[in-house]
Amino acid sequence: MKSVKNITIAGAGLVGSLMSIYLAKRGYKVTIFEGRKDIRAAGKAEGRSINLALSNRGWLPLKEVGLESTVEKMVIPMRGRMMHDEEGFLTFQPYGREGQAINSISRGGLNEVLMNAAEKEGVEIKFECKCVGINFDESILHYENAGTRYSQKSDLIIGADGAFSVIRRLMQRTDRFNYSQHYIEHGYKELSIPPSANGGFEIEKNALHIWPRGNFMLIALPNQDGSFTCTLFFPFEGSPSFESLKNDDQIRNFFQKTFPDAYNLMPSLLKDFHNNPTSSLITIKSYPWVKNRTLLIGDASHAIVPFYGQGMNSGFEDCRVLNDLLNDYEDDWSKVLPKFQEQRKPDADAISDLALKNFIEMRDLVGDEDFLLRKKIEAKIYEQFPQKWVPLYSMVTFKEDIRYSEAMKTGEKQKAIMDKVMAQTDIHKNWEKLDLKKLVDQLQS
Amino acid sequence: MKSVKNITIAGAGLVGSLMSIYLAKRGYKVTIFEGRKDIRAAGKAEGRSINLALSNRGWLPLKEVGLESTVEKMVIPMRGRMMHDEEGFLTFQPYGREGQAINSISRGGLNEVLMNAAEKEGVEIKFECKCVGINFDESILHYENAGTRYSQKSDLIIGADGAFSVIRRLMQRTDRFNYSQHYIEHGYKELSIPPSANGGFEIEKNALHIWPRGNFMLIALPNQDGSFTCTLFFPFEGSPSFESLKNDDQIRNFFQKTFPDAYNLMPSLLKDFHNNPTSSLITIKSYPWVKNRTLLIGDASHAIVPFYGQGMNSGFEDCRVLNDLLNDYEDDWSKVLPKFQEQRKPDADAISDLALKNFIEMRDLVGDEDFLLRKKIEAKIYEQFPQKWVPLYSMVTFKEDIRYSEAMKTGEKQKAIMDKVMAQTDIHKNWEKLDLKKLVDQLQS
Repeated sequence: MKSVKNITIAGAGLVGSLMSIYLAKRGYKVTIFEGRKDIRAAGKAEGRSINLALSNRGWLPLKEVGLESTVEKMVIPMRGRMMHDEEGFLTFQPYGREGQAINSISRGGLNEVLMNAAEKEGVEIKFECKCVGINFDESILHYENAGTRYSQKSDLIIGADGAFSVIRRLMQRTDRFNYSQHYIEHGYKELSIPPSANGGFEIEKNALHIWPRGNFMLIALPNQDGSFTCTLFFPFEGSPSFESLKNDDQIRNFFQKTFPDAYNLMPSLLKDFHNNPTSSLITIKSYPWVKNRTLLIGDASHAIVPFYGQGMNSGFEDCRVLNDLLNDYEDDWSKVLPKFQEQRKPDADAISDLALKNFIEMRDLVGDEDFLLRKKIEAKIYEQFPQKWVPLYSMVTFKEDIRYSEAMKTGEKQKAIMDKVMAQTDIHKNWEKLDLKKLVDQLQS
Repeated sequence: MKSVKNITIAGAGLVGSLMSIYLAKRGYKVTIFEGRKDIRAAGKAEGRSINLALSNRGWLPLKEVGLESTVEKMVIPMRGRMMHDEEGFLTFQPYGREGQAINSISRGGLNEVLMNAAEKEGVEIKFECKCVGINFDESILHYENAGTRYSQKSDLIIGADGAFSVIRRLMQRTDRFNYSQHYIEHGYKELSIPPSANGGFEIEKNALHIWPRGNFMLIALPNQDGSFTCTLFFPFEGSPSFESLKNDDQIRNFFQKTFPDAYNLMPSLLKDFHNNPTSSLITIKSYPWVKNRTLLIGDASHAIVPFYGQGMNSGFEDCRVLNDLLNDYEDDWSKVLPKFQEQRKPDADAISDLALKNFIEMRDLVGDEDFLLRKKIEAKIYEQFPQKWVPLYSMVTFKEDIRYSEAMKTGEKQKAIMDKVMAQTDIHKNWEKLDLKKLVDQLQS
């Protein structure tokens, strides 16, 4: 492959912007084509997910490109799950060990920081330039701006244009491209809890709040202004569902009965419910991610459901892994590109499956007694054998040195061991007498 | 749903043409838009699969529309598999009971018969009209002819435009449409065995010939002119593979060594190998198949690999099932459309999975001793209990009254029973002493 100097990136979202910083720092001339307007000029980010949970796999790349201290000021640490039951009683489950937390951050705010940093590194971001075609043989991107069509030839094209990627759609028409898109039966709608009268937080600030209700759930993440962004994950059809809540009375009654404490904190419930869209939730898998000199990264190649809080984090990890490979192979892209997709695909598949499974855990199991005991036992093992038994959630969220695929495999082994433990008679009485060392040895064997 | 009078079909292939006949016979005004030229005018069908295996699920609809006697004259019955080993020794395995056969037929010839019959029923087929867009709300199909764009509004649109369906691709962009396309690691190339000097068949006429070679295979189906169309199913990469056969010597040596008896009957091997494309093999799944008043059928909604010989047969069955539902619901499409997709989807998924699995059986197991004994025992059970134990292949191929999904489920039960039988010590010695009645009872339980 002839040497790469000029790189075109499609998409100035979180992943495209971060990738451009890595590449500019390596000395590449990077141009990003973004279909939307500059969100910084508009003053407010477009898009529907208002805040996200940043965890270790996302932090590491931000550190590597020197943005740690900037981003640190923007986050609210969430140290565990705060569960709200139907009477409004609360239970707190810490996510990890002392000090470990995931971090609520504004998607728009983080995107602005990344774009500013990219431009500071010499990256050119061309807004309102919509990708409309690609010549894979010649690495030419065709795009439209204000109704006129232009072309950009470069040495490499990176498609970081999200779950509905145009680059991927064009790749999909080439031979032997595997692809799947799958929607779950649930949609989501964003709602809001405003700050208290004195500008404070109405509910615990440093937690991810969950109202688990079996087949569905409400969650809330804190914002720096004291508000919470709530998301209702809810079936499209059935009872109850988005379809079954037909008028204001039904919406009000449903919330009052189902989420009483949240309901009292949502003065704009009806307005939000009507004005905010009901969005669908998609899992996308694709392979290969490389076609000649065009590469897909982030949601463009592997979009996942949000239930592990790993969408952005896995996309950022893509950038870090690609940068690591450029180090390992001294920027020989002919080696880096095949290596990247081979290495990264099993990890993308793993987090995709884990994210789907975690929906069940969040909405249904977090209130289940057996599940809580299981978590308690695992936490105790982790405490006594921190090097030998890291719970699955911790591996995914806090152990950026463990690959997703490895975490999933270890998690399956842990589950098999814990299934047997939980099947013991009177385990709820006798769990403190368990021989934890023996369980740990089983995992190592 | 307001009453349906005018129906637009995209695609005048096998399934679109057959569907149009059913609908015209019911009194609908049907127009087909076909992107390609009229194959009848060209004198020769385009497309790569030259002959196909017509079996019971395909016959029944042809009977229903009155084409049985016409098509009967065009087929060559294949009563079983003729296996060719590496020394050229032959083994014959009948497909079913006395008289049961699958039928080799020319794709182009059958398509012509169907188009002629459709036009006779008053269907209008517009050739060289390529679908380019669709308005799902208004049931308007946009198409291009000779560079000019036109629109056709109708009461219902049926996408029968094949595995690379434009209608499905447009549907795919609408919300909550599940879709997957998956390519296997093997491709195929068509080759040919010409008729003998006196115009006869060089190898057994009434058989489907297989040269099973573990990871790959060659097959041959007879044509009425005495020739055979051969298909090499072969990995794209690896050793051996399409990639590894780099020059004439390598191709020749490989065939001579691997398929010696076939090689001697293939004077145009090198020419065919170079001139015929290496094509890929795709499985496509999608759902829903209905969007407002647009419906997908055949390969457009469920394309499968060819290893069960059921691609065309399942597409024809789609047409029959849809027609049956129109009978059941007296042409109330508002009931027929949802019913059709709900009922038919599990059957499409089943034959899709069965087709993938049968590749392994065909290329690898047909020469395996355990597999052959298993088949022998099952054949004996079938002979003694023809109502109670029909082997999977026979259910799929010869029992058009058993749904694919039902056949698959029964097949799984049979497999579990037979796995235990085959695990018995000395089964190769003792199989004739088996209590077959007991096995049949296990299946019924």
